[in-house]
This record gives sequence, C-alpha cells and structure tokens, in this order.
Amino acid sequence: MSQALPPRPVIFDTDPGIDDAMALWMLARHPGLDLRAITTVHGNAPVGTTTRNALALVDFFGLDVPVAAGADDALLPRTERFFPTQVHHEDGLGGGAPLLPATRRQPDPRPAWQLICDEINAAPGEITLVAVAPLTNLALALRHDPGIARKVREVVLMGGAFGLHGHGGNVTPVAEANIINDPEAADLVFTASWPVVTVGLDVTQQVVMPEALLQSLQGRRGPVGDFFWQITRHYQRYYDGRDAIGGLYAHDASAVVYCVAPEAFQLRRGPVRVALEGIARGQTIQDHLGLHEDSPASPWRGCPDQQVCVGVDAQRVRDEFMQLFDDSSQAASPAVSGDSQ
Amino acid sequence: MSQALPPRPVIFDTDPGIDDAMALWMLARHPGLDLRAITTVHGNAPVGTTTRNALALVDFFGLDVPVAAGADDALLPRTERFFPTQVHHEDGLGGGAPLLPATRRQPDPRPAWQLICDEINAAPGEITLVAVAPLTNLALALRHDPGIARKVREVVLMGGAFGLHGHGGNVTPVAEANIINDPEAADLVFTASWPVVTVGLDVTQQVVMPEALLQSLQGRRGPVGDFFWQITRHYQRYYDGRDAIGGLYAHDASAVVYCVAPEAFQLRRGPVRVALEGIARGQTIQDHLGLHEDSPASPWRGCPDQQVCVGVDAQRVRDEFMQLFDDSSQAASPAVSGDSQ
Repeated sequence: MSQALPPRPVIFDTDPGIDDAMALWMLARHPGLDLRAITTVHGNAPVGTTTRNALALVDFFGLDVPVAAGADDALLPRTERFFPTQVHHEDGLGGGAPLLPATRRQPDPRPAWQLICDEINAAPGEITLVAVAPLTNLALALRHDPGIARKVREVVLMGGAFGLHGHGGNVTPVAEANIINDPEAADLVFTASWPVVTVGLDVTQQVVMPEALLQSLQGRRGPVGDFFWQITRHYQRYYDGRDAIGGLYAHDASAVVYCVAPEAFQLRRGPVRVALEGIARGQTIQDHLGLHEDSPASPWRGCPDQQVCVGVDAQRVRDEFMQLFDDSSQAASPAVSGDSQ
Repeated sequence: MSQALPPRPVIFDTDPGIDDAMALWMLARHPGLDLRAITTVHGNAPVGTTTRNALALVDFFGLDVPVAAGADDALLPRTERFFPTQVHHEDGLGGGAPLLPATRRQPDPRPAWQLICDEINAAPGEITLVAVAPLTNLALALRHDPGIARKVREVVLMGGAFGLHGHGGNVTPVAEANIINDPEAADLVFTASWPVVTVGLDVTQQVVMPEALLQSLQGRRGPVGDFFWQITRHYQRYYDGRDAIGGLYAHDASAVVYCVAPEAFQLRRGPVRVALEGIARGQTIQDHLGLHEDSPASPWRGCPDQQVCVGVDAQRVRDEFMQLFDDSSQAASPAVSGDSQ
C-alpha cells in the first residue's frame, strides 16, 4: 500500500557492512523509497573501508547519489579500536569486496555532517534520516546546526537493545554495537527534539533470514543475488557459531522496512537515554513507565518521548526484502568482476 | 515433599516492610524452614523502625530468635535519604504497627554483620542467608570475615531486575529498590564466591496476591490473618494506583518460597555485576551468554556464576503462603492490642 504514496526521501547513514549492503539494496530498489544521499562512518570497519564499500555498492546497484565520508572515530576519540572482523570480515563485506566492480566514483567533497545538514535544509519536513551505524555523523550534524532537528521528518535507527524477549546486547550483556561505538553521540541523538524510532536487537534478532532463503537469491537480479549469497557466508558462519540460528539477522534491512511498512512493528513510547559510564556503558534505557514523572532528578526528565520497536512481523520484513528480487526487470548494474558463481 | 527433609536453617536479613512481614510469617510457620536469627537494615524505613517492627513481629508470630540491628545507611553514606512511605507507610507496616502488641524484647547486642558471621561459623555448610533488603549487612559480614563465603550453604536474595518479561526496575527504569539502596554492597554480594540465587522483579512481579485472597485471611490464625489484611490495604492502594493489578506483589515471600520449593522457579546461570555509575546505577546485569569469555577486559570476567530466577510458578508461591493459614492449630501469638476487626 505504501507504493501508492510518493516515495519517501531518505538519507542513509551507514558503515557497510553486510547487512548494510542488504539495507542499501532495499533503498535502491524499493518503490516507496527515494534515496537522496549516503553518508559513511566508522563502525563495522574503518571509515576508509566503509566509504570504499559504499561507493562500489552505489555503482553495483546502479544508483546515482552522493556519498560523503564521515567520522572515523567516536565523539570521544578512543585509544583502542575494535572492528568486528569476525562478523563483517576485514573488508567489511564478508570477504566479498573483490566481487564488486572497480569504481571511479569519488566521495562528495563535503563531510558527512555537512551533507546531512544541506539535504535537510533544502527540503524541510521531507527527509527521513535512516542511520544504521554509530551515530557520530548525526551528532555532529546536530552540533553544527541544531535547527535540523525541527526540519527532519523522522530519524529511523538500527541501534540499541532494550532487554526485551530475553535479548540483551551483542557487545556487552546490555550494549549493542552501534550504540557502544559512540554512546555520547547516541545520547545526543535520542535526546534531541526530533522524532526518533529505533529498531534495536529486541526486534532485529527476531528477523532471521534462513540459509535457504539466501541460497534462493543466486542467479536473481543479475549478479546482485549471487553477491548477497556470497557475502553472507562469513556473516552466517558467525551467527551460526554463536546463536545457531541457521541463517542471519537482517539488522539494518529491518530499519529500512520500518520506513515502508511501519505497520509491521509495535512501538513503545518514552524518553530514551544512553548509559555513558561503568559496566552499563552503551546501554539504551527507555523510561516507558514514566518513572521520571515522580522524580525531579531523573535523567529522563525533560527528554522527548521517542519510539522503541518492541515487536515485529518478521515474515513481513523478509517479504519486503525478497520481493525486490521478484520483479522480472534486471537491475541496471555492471557485471561482477570477481568469480562469483 | 520438602517437609520430609530436615528443616532448612535460615538467617533472615530484612527491613520490615509489609511483604517482609509476610515472608517472616512463612519463615516462622513453614515446617521446611528453621529460622535461627533475624538481622535488620535500612530500606523500607530507617533501621530504628525496621528493628522495632522485627522485634514486635517476633513476639506476634510467637517466635524466639535473636534480632540484631544492622546498618542504617549504605556502604557509601548518602546525603539525601529516601524511604518509600508511599509503599510501606511511615511506620514500615502500612500504618499497621499500632496493631502489634507492645513488646519488651530487646535487640541482640551484636551488630547484624557479627550475628551473621557467628551463626555461619557455628554451623558451617548449613546456613541459608535469606536477604530481602539492601545488602549492606551482608557486605559488611563479608568484609569482616571473608571466610563465611565458603561456609554458607546458599544466599537467597529478593533483589534486582533483569529486564525480562517486559519488567524493568521499580525506582529507575533499570534499578530495583533493594539494589539501588546500596549498589556497592550488592556488587560485593553478587561477586563473592558463595552461591547466590536472586529472585528479582522479573519473577516477583508475576506473583500477584489478589485482593480476594488477602480478604480471605481475615479471622484465620487468630489475629494474624486480620493483621495481614489490614497492613496490605496501604500497600495494595499503591500497586493498584501504579500497575492496576488488583492486589499486591509478594516480593519477599517469593524468596522464602524459593528455599522450600526451588522447583517452582526457572533459573539462569551466569556472573552478575551491579552498575555503580551514571543513569544505570543500581541495575543488576548478568552475562548469561558468556560474552565475557571473548573479552579479557569484561567486568564479568573472573566473577562466579550466580543464579537469576527468570520464571516462576506463581500459583505455587501463593499456595505455599496460603497453606500456612490452613492448619487447624492456632498461632501461638498474643492478641492484638489495636482495634483490628
């Protein structure tokens, strides 16, 4: 039904990233979405790698949108860095970066935060910011131009863990990777006066893409289906070793599906803060019961209500992704340069 | 079936407290339990009040055990104190303290931590410590005599919130009252090398005592049933106003039921730490997935596995409480001095 509406303008802030690539494919192909720009950031790999991957994916998916490189570290620079090579591989794409055609595409000269501010200011009330990575770029954009908060249509995040359905964090018992990679930025984003919806591990870990479904992508949409099958092998081995789910979690794609099918998600309203100190650092905490209303000293007091996804129709998420491979027209993308099957 | 075993020796660390009084009644009457001593602490009210209540309840329930007064503040003294009079009333017993007969019983001359150490050392391997209040006394006992950790049989707590079943904390979104009233003490207790089982809000908020059940206590066990009906009126009004449960949560009694019917609880194993800083202060966090095993810097690394209750047979908890009113023999307690109905 969303197809009947004008497509929704989106800026995609990302750190590709295997599931980022799946999310970007949805943004490229879904008729309900109008991808305007991509901004990259540290996270699944250093920003040099995630920017290179974003540029190559833009070509591969036949897109023509600016890609601006963003922050390569958190707001508070870290002395020790950790990149989840066990999940996304050294190249950020499960070892599949060589499968992508060489690109001559160059990054936009502006830093990511500047591109975000420019796009939002150029179309007040229209842009949805979809951010599926550490939130450093969004925090920098807010710092440089706080006025964007009232001009953005919606901020849709993949991030956080609210302890529902027995799911905790994936880096510490309470912290999810995107948030713990820049907790100060995340706290700024959640407490700014713009409408945030976050799709956290509580729901994304309910959205398993089984191996058979990924296998069925082979040979579909030209080289794209083969590419996804290939790059998800490393990713699936990680999840199978950890959670034995027989597939993978489509974390970032779930946030994109929210933009076109919000009715597939149950939401919970209340202010959200991020723990910055001690063993809970990086935890997202929502005061959905309104405990802050009785407590003048509560850290949640005065913070805007945001929306946390607490339930999901997982089949709908899978269907929204898979239907983009059903169309008989072929993706306008060059052939893969590697030896994809 | 537990009745066939020799009764389990227990020291009860408590801050009566309405649900503490219900738990104490179980410890006084249950044939599977052998109450050896009571220690009091700050929490639901100042320690002067909780000690006075404990002494009066010992007489009222016809017990003859020592009552030792413990800490009146957390390990880190606080400048601002908060007592939950909206839950337990100024007198800690829902306004029902005047219903208890006057007592000439005096506290044991030892501080609570000393009584705990003495009892454990006198019966190595036998004593179960049941603690349903801030954990200051237990932490002080551990500090004065770390050797008690290997001499105690088990430590059973009512405390903490692990975010299961949609339940968070009851003071902040993540912190439960007993833990946030002394987080440093709780962290010492959870990380000591003794076996801890904690019955947190995740399960106690599944154990509702409906009003009709409480009403049915009237006239049973001499004045005791009337007393419980009276003192739970204030407590129920609080919960009805907040959660509209049509009754009350039997938090502390649930921990006592664990001692006689552990099969009524599902447990989850893993090290537990308490957040000490920032907005998560007072949160109990268990690394039940073993994330610390891959992370040398994890705060959970090297900490002993403890047991967290994650599921409960609520009807069984209610039945264990109610059956103590079914016996035809009358409680050997003096008549109430107030104007109980």
